[in-house]
Amino acid sequence: MAGNSIGHTFKLTTFGESHGEAIGGVIDGVPSNFALDLRAVQVELDRRRPGQSDIVTQRKESDTVRFLSGIFEGKTTGAPIGFVIENENQKSKDYSHIENIYRPSHADFTYDKKYGHRDYRGGGRSSARETASRVVAGAIAKQFLNHLGIKVEAFVSQVGPIKLEGDLTNLPLPGRENSVRCPDPLVAEKMIDFIKTVRKAGDTIGGVVFARINGVPLGLGAPVFDKLHADLGKAMLSINAVKGFEYGSGFSGVEMKGSKHNDVIQPDGTTLSNHSGGIQGGISNGTPIYFRVAFKPVATIMQDQSSVNSKMEVVKVEGKGRHDPCVVPRAVPIVEAMASITILDHYLRNKMTQI
Amino acid sequence: MAGNSIGHTFKLTTFGESHGEAIGGVIDGVPSNFALDLRAVQVELDRRRPGQSDIVTQRKESDTVRFLSGIFEGKTTGAPIGFVIENENQKSKDYSHIENIYRPSHADFTYDKKYGHRDYRGGGRSSARETASRVVAGAIAKQFLNHLGIKVEAFVSQVGPIKLEGDLTNLPLPGRENSVRCPDPLVAEKMIDFIKTVRKAGDTIGGVVFARINGVPLGLGAPVFDKLHADLGKAMLSINAVKGFEYGSGFSGVEMKGSKHNDVIQPDGTTLSNHSGGIQGGISNGTPIYFRVAFKPVATIMQDQSSVNSKMEVVKVEGKGRHDPCVVPRAVPIVEAMASITILDHYLRNKMTQI
Amino acid sequence: MAGNSIGHTFKLTTFGESHGEAIGGVIDGVPSNFALDLRAVQVELDRRRPGQSDIVTQRKESDTVRFLSGIFEGKTTGAPIGFVIENENQKSKDYSHIENIYRPSHADFTYDKKYGHRDYRGGGRSSARETASRVVAGAIAKQFLNHLGIKVEAFVSQVGPIKLEGDLTNLPLPGRENSVRCPDPLVAEKMIDFIKTVRKAGDTIGGVVFARINGVPLGLGAPVFDKLHADLGKAMLSINAVKGFEYGSGFSGVEMKGSKHNDVIQPDGTTLSNHSGGIQGGISNGTPIYFRVAFKPVATIMQDQSSVNSKMEVVKVEGKGRHDPCVVPRAVPIVEAMASITILDHYLRNKMTQI
Amino acid sequence: MAGNSIGHTFKLTTFGESHGEAIGGVIDGVPSNFALDLRAVQVELDRRRPGQSDIVTQRKESDTVRFLSGIFEGKTTGAPIGFVIENENQKSKDYSHIENIYRPSHADFTYDKKYGHRDYRGGGRSSARETASRVVAGAIAKQFLNHLGIKVEAFVSQVGPIKLEGDLTNLPLPGRENSVRCPDPLVAEKMIDFIKTVRKAGDTIGGVVFARINGVPLGLGAPVFDKLHADLGKAMLSINAVKGFEYGSGFSGVEMKGSKHNDVIQPDGTTLSNHSGGIQGGISNGTPIYFRVAFKPVATIMQDQSSVNSKMEVVKVEGKGRHDPCVVPRAVPIVEAMASITILDHYLRNKMTQI
Repeated sequence: MAGNSIGHTFKLTTFGESHGEAIGGVIDGVPSNFALDLRAVQVELDRRRPGQSDIVTQRKESDTVRFLSGIFEGKTTGAPIGFVIENENQKSKDYSHIENIYRPSHADFTYDKKYGHRDYRGGGRSSARETASRVVAGAIAKQFLNHLGIKVEAFVSQVGPIKLEGDLTNLPLPGRENSVRCPDPLVAEKMIDFIKTVRKAGDTIGGVVFARINGVPLGLGAPVFDKLHADLGKAMLSINAVKGFEYGSGFSGVEMKGSKHNDVIQPDGTTLSNHSGGIQGGISNGTPIYFRVAFKPVATIMQDQSSVNSKMEVVKVEGKGRHDPCVVPRAVPIVEAMASITILDHYLRNKMTQI
Repeated sequence: MAGNSIGHTFKLTTFGESHGEAIGGVIDGVPSNFALDLRAVQVELDRRRPGQSDIVTQRKESDTVRFLSGIFEGKTTGAPIGFVIENENQKSKDYSHIENIYRPSHADFTYDKKYGHRDYRGGGRSSARETASRVVAGAIAKQFLNHLGIKVEAFVSQVGPIKLEGDLTNLPLPGRENSVRCPDPLVAEKMIDFIKTVRKAGDTIGGVVFARINGVPLGLGAPVFDKLHADLGKAMLSINAVKGFEYGSGFSGVEMKGSKHNDVIQPDGTTLSNHSGGIQGGISNGTPIYFRVAFKPVATIMQDQSSVNSKMEVVKVEGKGRHDPCVVPRAVPIVEAMASITILDHYLRNKMTQI
Repeated sequence: MAGNSIGHTFKLTTFGESHGEAIGGVIDGVPSNFALDLRAVQVELDRRRPGQSDIVTQRKESDTVRFLSGIFEGKTTGAPIGFVIENENQKSKDYSHIENIYRPSHADFTYDKKYGHRDYRGGGRSSARETASRVVAGAIAKQFLNHLGIKVEAFVSQVGPIKLEGDLTNLPLPGRENSVRCPDPLVAEKMIDFIKTVRKAGDTIGGVVFARINGVPLGLGAPVFDKLHADLGKAMLSINAVKGFEYGSGFSGVEMKGSKHNDVIQPDGTTLSNHSGGIQGGISNGTPIYFRVAFKPVATIMQDQSSVNSKMEVVKVEGKGRHDPCVVPRAVPIVEAMASITILDHYLRNKMTQI
Repeated sequence: MAGNSIGHTFKLTTFGESHGEAIGGVIDGVPSNFALDLRAVQVELDRRRPGQSDIVTQRKESDTVRFLSGIFEGKTTGAPIGFVIENENQKSKDYSHIENIYRPSHADFTYDKKYGHRDYRGGGRSSARETASRVVAGAIAKQFLNHLGIKVEAFVSQVGPIKLEGDLTNLPLPGRENSVRCPDPLVAEKMIDFIKTVRKAGDTIGGVVFARINGVPLGLGAPVFDKLHADLGKAMLSINAVKGFEYGSGFSGVEMKGSKHNDVIQPDGTTLSNHSGGIQGGISNGTPIYFRVAFKPVATIMQDQSSVNSKMEVVKVEGKGRHDPCVVPRAVPIVEAMASITILDHYLRNKMTQI
């Protein structure tokens, strides 16, 4: 009810504030007797980590995950996997200057009113630091999916006005692990330049992450409320700063005629087009799934802003600290994590369809 | 796990196929001792009903809801409300011609493969007829919301290429209950003409429903996975034919700078702008919530199409029957219903935040 | 949250008051493509029906179930099964004499205080009539279990002071479908006589139902909170009038030494004794599961009693109407139903243990 | 689905094996803005800790809990409380001698077959060590309950054949915190002597924990499947070694007549008797709740036993190590913890009954 869990069968529960003792989580429903590569989990965490390039926040967090349970002799036991990531350094810092200030477009105001008491240090529970726990669970889910031949890949398709054009569903991705995580090197360079310009102005900018999932078997998803794309959509919309989600033709499908939009099924089960985005009636049809996730510009900017304090008096919020000028490069592993959790969850759910 | 329920505290479970005995549902968690206006429920159902205008399907369904429990002497008892809507006429019809055919961009293929057995009559469980049950629950939720001063209103903002322009968050809505449910009479007329032209060509077209919710108190929503907009997004994406969801600035926020996007909080708790769409950190901030829902063109068209049958042989699918050329006019009450269910669910959840 | 559902994968939601329009339910998570014998469902309902013998209530209810969805051409489709059982005759009756009276050891007082408004006709939602819906779902679950070689059998082992003695885990059950549902004809006769004597005195008496489940495969149940016996226990304790549950050695195990209580495992996987009741660490071990369920005497007696009305004034409650002098004969199919639902639910859950 | 969570609104998820890195959990749904006494949590843990007296296991575990989140400046924030208890010393020990042995009446066999891979060190996830996490959550729940005037108290009422006689619902409890946790000093002495005798024989013995809850407000519990006593029963049956649960008159109510069993309601809302155990129709009626929990003798005995290994060959299991001769003294705080979690959960759920 308090909303800190996601998934029905492969289920993640997270805890932790950005500047508390530690963050972490419990993953329940992990299939047993499966060899996990724990270094691969750390690799995914490193993709999300601050300080990895010059266009992301320069905060220092090593983000080293410690596994506490559920794994024995290198294999899953079916017991829940508990894990923690210690918060470093930040504990002693002085946060009294923001204690009573409600920053614009942050959760300060809503948390304070809802809960009556709030951990104001660095955003507390509302900080995107929580997503590190999602990446841990997602990296584990991804290993199961890889074993099943399912491949989840995301990349940056837009930063501010700079977009990747053309059909992105088949775009080769060898070079996507550059600092902006855009697979086209020329576009990537423009994006990086744009982000640097924005940062110099003390500002921030939004972007889009494009995700595609290949190898999903036919039959995942439930027909009515838990349609596969509805659960993917919720998973994406639960990521900090996300403002929109579309799959397949998405918003552009609005202007299409049915005769054009319909995907003709062929004798091999594939479809001539894929406006459906790999999902029909909420259920995967065996063709590639793809979707786009819109991120707003980060709310913390390096400019002074007007706001109110907890007495609802007008105050000036100073622009300082270390923050991402654009969130999408670091959001790529988070999108992949949430997609992996969702797909594995539905893969397991689907095992109960027939007896 | 089979995905036929939505909501945690105010919870709807639906059942029923388009051409089976009846459709219906159970609403659990209905607050007790509340006077319900059952005629108002029927009014909402009538807004969704086929045959209400000349731009929607001309199928005949009276869609009369019968309440079986949970209401006594006109008031809710706190017991679950069970209800049924009988399916009329269609039962005797002959469906053998589509028994083994997988229509393009329908759920025929995915259902058959997932379940091994399928009610092929008129789409069965995948038919949008299921949404009538959602409208029943939504109409009940709406009465609680009205009592709480919360107003949920949706309208059509786009049909194919024809859009309502300008700020829609404050648009007056007196005239929206025309046949296309667009509040601007001039734009509505264009939309109606466009739909008629599309229908004459035996084709279909997509559209956008815009929804806004006023009067939501501060504090609804959970911070992490069950963010208010994530649950609204899932609710919308679970509606048949929906391809995308965005709230507040949505996809257009991608190109905005943080300094422009941030909503400055004022001493009265309102914000100067509302790019956040009434939600900060997943929690309502007391300002209006608004979002957009993208619907694809209906898959059933009045043109012959190529497809395959259950032996995966190429077959011709004939274009016949009675179907909506554009789904959005009838989708308006469904969007309102799903939004009402979601908001009431979170309203009740929020009661447990403090002891 | 309002507690009208049970099960995680095979999930029953019920609705309906004893004297409302109808009772019924939705069964979600029914495995697809399985041939159901609907007459067998009615046979189970008839085992629970009033008026079937001279030691149960003589109320007239035909309890005919109507299936509304989820079954097509005789087989399950994987869609939820909605069903209703109409309430007959009682609707027009006058209940004004009990409208404001809180009967002793009934739910009148607690419902009224909790909900502020209550359907007082014949107990409303608190009536054991609700269990008819459980029997429908249980009868369907039982067909899956039979297909899997799992056999659920319950019988009456005690009525008041009259008990079946000896080891009941292997007792042959051919004759158990007598009016008291006790498999030993001599003991059954004593029980029937005892019940008749109690009834003549206008009183009621408690009893015990013994249940055993053979053929449960090794591995059902979850280790910590959802231990198989914990879920069986909750299912039983949720039945009206149940006051206790014990499995395996139960309360008698308290006085045993570990050296005696331990079940020695043999090379074929069976155990020399079965004090564990077929469950080790919450997980079925492949040996027979057995448990006992204690039922209190029915609260409605044919004697005048003192109580209070809704103004908390002392009133006399008159003893009249038609009620069971002892609930256990009719409770047998309910216990079997709840056991079947629980076992099938865990059977399906267990499918997700390994990938 | 994997069963490592309990509660709907106040929800505990646990993780951890007895000899892994650490055990711990996440408590979600903790009401915000409440001052927690963290030392009181440790006091409850100390009541459960090994080595606290000469009739419990002499294993050394300090069981110090570390809180990682959800508490700030001494008060709850509404965010989930994550916590860990490190496992000490045991990590380096050699467990190879039990690696392939299935001990009688332990979960070794069922875990191995269900999961295909098992942490065999000291019972792993099936160890009662997991209950330390429950005590942490229960101790927190208890503080909320105390604030609400609700008092949860358990004690030992039986060890083997030695019982506390008479009405236990009003027994004064000042002296119950002796080593066997029985409030009557004479009976306690007999129990202690009996346990010592059993231990000397290398054997173990069962017992009963009696629990009572005073001050529960009228209205907690849900009417059908989530009856208050059904959820209490499940919570108790989920504790290691529990074989039975009864509330109010329990199994003894079976032999009572309705005219005797019925609890006459008085003008002040109390009842003349309390065979109902404080719950009517699944809902608390404001009178004291009480129940009994049966524990079997601990399966680990200091005698050699016959069993099988993973190849299903007969082997001898040697009796050695440090274990409790009787589990009930240490079970008392666990019973209180599970009762506290259940009552607080339903207290919060009840807040949603009326709008």
